[in-house]
Amino acid sequence: MAISTEDNPALAPFTADDYRVRMARAVASAADEGLAGLLVAPGPDLTYLTGYRPGADTERLTLLVLAAGQDPVLVVPALEAGDAERAPGAAALTLRDWTDAKDPYAVTAPLLDPAGRFGVSDNAWAMHLLAFQHALPGTSYVALTEALPMLRAVKDARELARAEAAGAAADAAYGDILGVRFAGRRETEVAADLAALLLRHGHSQVDFTVVGSGPNGANPHHEAGTRVIERGDMIVLDFGGLKHGYGSDTTRTVHVGEPTAEERAVHDLVREAQQAGFEAVRPGVACQEVDRAARAVIDAAGYGEYFIHRTGHGIGVTTHEPPYMIEGEERPMVPGMCFSIEPGVYLPGRFGVRIEDIVTVTEDGGRRFNNTSREMALVE
Amino acid sequence: MAISTEDNPALAPFTADDYRVRMARAVASAADEGLAGLLVAPGPDLTYLTGYRPGADTERLTLLVLAAGQDPVLVVPALEAGDAERAPGAAALTLRDWTDAKDPYAVTAPLLDPAGRFGVSDNAWAMHLLAFQHALPGTSYVALTEALPMLRAVKDARELARAEAAGAAADAAYGDILGVRFAGRRETEVAADLAALLLRHGHSQVDFTVVGSGPNGANPHHEAGTRVIERGDMIVLDFGGLKHGYGSDTTRTVHVGEPTAEERAVHDLVREAQQAGFEAVRPGVACQEVDRAARAVIDAAGYGEYFIHRTGHGIGVTTHEPPYMIEGEERPMVPGMCFSIEPGVYLPGRFGVRIEDIVTVTEDGGRRFNNTSREMALVE
Repeated sequence: MAISTEDNPALAPFTADDYRVRMARAVASAADEGLAGLLVAPGPDLTYLTGYRPGADTERLTLLVLAAGQDPVLVVPALEAGDAERAPGAAALTLRDWTDAKDPYAVTAPLLDPAGRFGVSDNAWAMHLLAFQHALPGTSYVALTEALPMLRAVKDARELARAEAAGAAADAAYGDILGVRFAGRRETEVAADLAALLLRHGHSQVDFTVVGSGPNGANPHHEAGTRVIERGDMIVLDFGGLKHGYGSDTTRTVHVGEPTAEERAVHDLVREAQQAGFEAVRPGVACQEVDRAARAVIDAAGYGEYFIHRTGHGIGVTTHEPPYMIEGEERPMVPGMCFSIEPGVYLPGRFGVRIEDIVTVTEDGGRRFNNTSREMALVE
Repeated sequence: MAISTEDNPALAPFTADDYRVRMARAVASAADEGLAGLLVAPGPDLTYLTGYRPGADTERLTLLVLAAGQDPVLVVPALEAGDAERAPGAAALTLRDWTDAKDPYAVTAPLLDPAGRFGVSDNAWAMHLLAFQHALPGTSYVALTEALPMLRAVKDARELARAEAAGAAADAAYGDILGVRFAGRRETEVAADLAALLLRHGHSQVDFTVVGSGPNGANPHHEAGTRVIERGDMIVLDFGGLKHGYGSDTTRTVHVGEPTAEERAVHDLVREAQQAGFEAVRPGVACQEVDRAARAVIDAAGYGEYFIHRTGHGIGVTTHEPPYMIEGEERPMVPGMCFSIEPGVYLPGRFGVRIEDIVTVTEDGGRRFNNTSREMALVE
């Protein structure tokens, strides 16, 4: 069992005041970028700013309008007003509901400067954006992560405590999974074990449990299928979810029985690349340097063409968010950022290896939230 | 157990040719509306047109480009190209993949008429739409359900067979749930029973299992909570998911032990309203007439203010889609349309009643895909 973090005061729930501060900071950051405000859709932005997580994101408009000089307003379908009222940040905003057969854009448009430029959540529905562009032809829009890529990127101490707890729980799940039977079972069965272990170690939600055995491991986006795991298989295990509202995401590559010399060499290579990426973490250094450092190791060994994805992604209230550890990302690392470092080598039709930790930036360099051994574990 | 439909040839999987026909029809419909083409995002539109359902809809662009005079092109992240190649409709389109650190919009833009007007999936990410608006300032966009609201609305015989099978399976689950214990158990426990029953009766996916007991039933969007069900409770059960790729969605309101006279009267009223809505179904009649017919019954009884949502929504490869049975929807019903008819009465703090069937339009009027008794069932 993971160390209990339940008594940690840093893990006390965020309050309406916390959300008020976040929303005020978002409005100020938007103003600094010349924006009249932000239009925040259900998803990670809304979760971060209000704690409100509607059950489903649907054709019915739910939108947080943040603008300088006015209180935050959350426009919600009347059907969902009761749920929104119970959101942790509800006391820090005004609810404005609309009923079916009414025009939600007519309710919302008066809240917007008709000549303003607004940041809009990346994942807001195109349908809603088009409706605002049509209703207010003098407005213009920019994707929120383009305008304010760092809005959620730098975590405060209470967020870091949550991310650390999520990482520790994922580590505990990994420790436990090493003891289960792999050979002779389907990938989906091991995936179900992993999901149950994440929940047992305190996750409220499981987002993915990849079990890529043998040739399936060579597809980085393989999830888990009906393939029966065999002795001699390399197996990529990539799993995560939410604990205390913050994401975990870790990958280890294990082997059923003794590996071949080549399997061991590729695993060593990826481990070395992951370490090189980790060592590149330092405040003020461009994010792309993490990618370059990890990639250089794999390139030098002649496996560059088999490392077919970026090295990492930010993580917070959702699993993929800025900053991305990718060539071209020139923004500097800042203490409090959290992201994955996850190089991999994928040999089509044969096997894959990926090793991933969540890392946070400190004044002195990187600190891992995943601390299980990165050596290849041998399983049965 | 539901009647087995597994041997029904109408349920044979859709082929690449089926998807080719759908895509060609979509292009033709778009041209009729003066559109240069359609930009189709992951979600129900993409599922319907290609059978491809990416594991997650993320910041990485996946987009089907349909335009007159060119083959359909599916732009996908290289990581997911393998999954896309295995999609049922893959043989009917050209895949174009892009790798991390490349600009996916630069890959896609040459496929678009730079002066064209395009329909875009309602749920496409705003971030992607903004990128196209920026890259191709001469283009313009309209939400797909605004331009082509009927694209997926009229089901053919093979789709109807799937929807009917989904309805029959939901009915079987309802029949079984009446035999479980309600009193003394939490809503979440009954919800878990319902989910297991939907799966047992052949659903591949459960989308919702609402158990709204006592006062929770008065919140139409309540899902299932920790409340312990008591003798004397009215309970709204609203559940559905996918079978053979098509949605089920049915609601029955049951009672633990004997109801009061008022509870019985409200239930009778909602049942009568649901029947009135059903009887309004007829080709050529405006969709809003279904809403009006159901609402008139509830209004006449003095409960109008407690019927706080539209009467229904279309259903197909997803649970909510056009046409909506709502005041203002003047488009006519057409044979092959499928939608819910689900009036309700919600008495705050006390109880709620909703009764819902999926109905399809035939030449002669409506035909229900849910055929369990709409009388109030008494449970233990």
